[in-house]
Amino acid sequence: MTDRYASFVQSGAGRALVKRLGLPDPPRLRRHTPGDPLVPGPVLLGAAAGSRLAEQVTKLLTLAGVELRDPAAATDATARYAALVYDATGITDSAGLRQLYDFFHPQARALLPSGRVIVLGTPSAECGTPREATAQRALEGLTRSIGKEFGRGVTAQLVYVTRDGDAGTPVSLEATLRFLLSGRSAYVSGQVIRVGAGTATAPADWDRPLDGQVVLVTGAARGIGAALARVLARDGAKVVALDVPAAGDALAEVANEIGGSAVQLDLTAPDAPTRLAEHLASRHGRVDVVVHNAGITRDKTLGRMDADRWDQVIDVNLSSQERINDVLLERDLIPAGGRIVSVSSIAGIAGNRGQTNYATSKAGVIGLVDSLSPVLRERGISLNAVAPGFIETRLTARIPLLIREAGRRMNSMAQGGLPVDVAETIGWLAWPASGAVTGNVVRVCGQSLLGA
Amino acid sequence: MTDRYASFVQSGAGRALVKRLGLPDPPRLRRHTPGDPLVPGPVLLGAAAGSRLAEQVTKLLTLAGVELRDPAAATDATARYAALVYDATGITDSAGLRQLYDFFHPQARALLPSGRVIVLGTPSAECGTPREATAQRALEGLTRSIGKEFGRGVTAQLVYVTRDGDAGTPVSLEATLRFLLSGRSAYVSGQVIRVGAGTATAPADWDRPLDGQVVLVTGAARGIGAALARVLARDGAKVVALDVPAAGDALAEVANEIGGSAVQLDLTAPDAPTRLAEHLASRHGRVDVVVHNAGITRDKTLGRMDADRWDQVIDVNLSSQERINDVLLERDLIPAGGRIVSVSSIAGIAGNRGQTNYATSKAGVIGLVDSLSPVLRERGISLNAVAPGFIETRLTARIPLLIREAGRRMNSMAQGGLPVDVAETIGWLAWPASGAVTGNVVRVCGQSLLGA
Repeated sequence: MTDRYASFVQSGAGRALVKRLGLPDPPRLRRHTPGDPLVPGPVLLGAAAGSRLAEQVTKLLTLAGVELRDPAAATDATARYAALVYDATGITDSAGLRQLYDFFHPQARALLPSGRVIVLGTPSAECGTPREATAQRALEGLTRSIGKEFGRGVTAQLVYVTRDGDAGTPVSLEATLRFLLSGRSAYVSGQVIRVGAGTATAPADWDRPLDGQVVLVTGAARGIGAALARVLARDGAKVVALDVPAAGDALAEVANEIGGSAVQLDLTAPDAPTRLAEHLASRHGRVDVVVHNAGITRDKTLGRMDADRWDQVIDVNLSSQERINDVLLERDLIPAGGRIVSVSSIAGIAGNRGQTNYATSKAGVIGLVDSLSPVLRERGISLNAVAPGFIETRLTARIPLLIREAGRRMNSMAQGGLPVDVAETIGWLAWPASGAVTGNVVRVCGQSLLGA
Repeated sequence: MTDRYASFVQSGAGRALVKRLGLPDPPRLRRHTPGDPLVPGPVLLGAAAGSRLAEQVTKLLTLAGVELRDPAAATDATARYAALVYDATGITDSAGLRQLYDFFHPQARALLPSGRVIVLGTPSAECGTPREATAQRALEGLTRSIGKEFGRGVTAQLVYVTRDGDAGTPVSLEATLRFLLSGRSAYVSGQVIRVGAGTATAPADWDRPLDGQVVLVTGAARGIGAALARVLARDGAKVVALDVPAAGDALAEVANEIGGSAVQLDLTAPDAPTRLAEHLASRHGRVDVVVHNAGITRDKTLGRMDADRWDQVIDVNLSSQERINDVLLERDLIPAGGRIVSVSSIAGIAGNRGQTNYATSKAGVIGLVDSLSPVLRERGISLNAVAPGFIETRLTARIPLLIREAGRRMNSMAQGGLPVDVAETIGWLAWPASGAVTGNVVRVCGQSLLGA
């Protein structure tokens, strides 16, 4: 579970050797600690002519205590920024893309380590002309290239913001901006995130964004699930930690550590959804957030795979999520403002050798988000997924060294992510303040080269 | 422009060494030669219970002279197939995905080299329930994994077919099936293709699918453009080959070779669209197919990039396409049944270091397809893009050896593609028979690992 190479690189002797030999140079990523300021330096905020979000962003970041700088006044070539934020919503044709160059070119070396690049755009469906939609779609090529180019732990994202959010509810964009600017999004890069209108409630304290929320986490005994339970509890949630009876001891340990409750349940049992629903109803009367984290792998090439391996993986990773959602929704246990977050995988996006079963189940999770989120939106419930890339867990520690090293280094951070990185991302999607974010699949992969 | 390693691997001594050392083993891909049968062996056609396309597929493949086999009768374990085609439209929930396993598991080793896997599904918008949409989306994980797993030049694709096409126009699916089964799609794998209703006209001779069509190819003097001019002419098109005046000699050579005409024009000149329109109007009275192939790179990291490099790349690769489309469409020079095909790039999907300008322009091309194709559909004109991966050209021959080798091998074919592979794919999208295919971005990348 440790990346010894990264530790070595960050040592004195390591640094010298890495520089001399031109070896991969994984930076130490800025991660979130409660009480941290949102950003460790000033933020440069620019906007294309005629953009519609800069004013709102200025207001909310100023209120958040961020020191904002104006590109017109940024004449000091030695100035360093924690983030470059650019409102590109005013760009209405391909010639107008030049404004991106004008903003980013002089600042390409001005970011602090683990700096942030955030570009704001208009989703295609809301563009007035094909030329505007074309230019807005082109933003993706820029942000993904910047993510691959800037290095030193810098992340780059494109956020498409619907017009609905312009006037009424600045909080809808605030949650996403806060997540992306903070150390919580350390291992999220090269992503396209869609923010719309929705039921968003600002927390009293942005350091406890889940205060009082009842959160169910499946597969909570180990790895990403255990990290998740800890992060959500840290952020104020009452965590209901669920895992199979065989993992009971580890589960109890996690639940005790965070002051949550433990539920031992095999999710594939026919009566699991109703038993779970009854437990939640009797103990809490509701569940505000459901995180479908439980998942298994049973790898074999298709020709060597027995039917049980296929069935188990599809059932645990996909069908059981559907059954549980259906029962909890039927019984109205997830109130308006509720959140469902599912765990998909890069394998569900790109496919993977030896994982036809796993990739099918995880692609299905993406289908679940696509198809069910519009239905749940009507009820004020959001549904999103995260797709982890190479995350350092006891599972990845078992991968043969060379393949493990390739997986670790083939991303813009030149290192694997930590379970806490996935947990922080799920946490953001679970916040009451994130109601404007639904139907997204967000990769937590350090902008892995792998994709489709 | 030659992959010496691949040639070596295909030699007698090379084969022995590759086997012994476990080196990458790029197979010799089956490519199309006029007069070839559609497939070099029988095709196994299966269907999930309640599927809606198998009957149509049986009819059209039988008429195409394909020897079809039924999985229920496929008891001979030594039988070898040219393709496995599976109609998955009957799968309505995740438990039903088991039928995929039941079909593919016993046949995982039954494909001939350069065999084909084709899965047919229903697009999300036409699924009756979220559960059905979830299961149909899960098909992507399966096909992409099979593409990575089967090896030996086998390709795997997922084709979503709208219900519109069920009854009336079998030709709409036929063009796509013929392309995917044939050697024309040698380097296309892991793709998701959407086929709907549209103006599709079957050719008199499927070996001359572009008979009599007036086709404009920009950037036709060299590389992919020259291969494209040859392939389109071979398939019956009257090719108008366009390139900049500086490439006039090479352009004339290509045009003479294929019996086409040459147009020397700088597409970024302000009067280029009208001059081109006038040329096409006076010589041909129309243009049936426009292929926007002209493109340039001016690589630099963003901090070192001068404004000219940004402007030129955006203008040649994106804005000039928009200007030309607009003028040709305004003057009604592209008739109903017309086709526009643009060339995007993997860099436009995934971003690339040192290519902020290029990736932005190529992502814009995807935006052009997304936003303009619904408008053009009303006029009976299709608009699609191809996104080439690593293609062996004089440009890639200049890439340093190690990076070139990585680019070449990091895909399911373990080799770079040839210009003809991109040309064949563009050709298919240009056929009068392909009217049901619009709004697609098809990668020609051998299922490169790179993506987003």
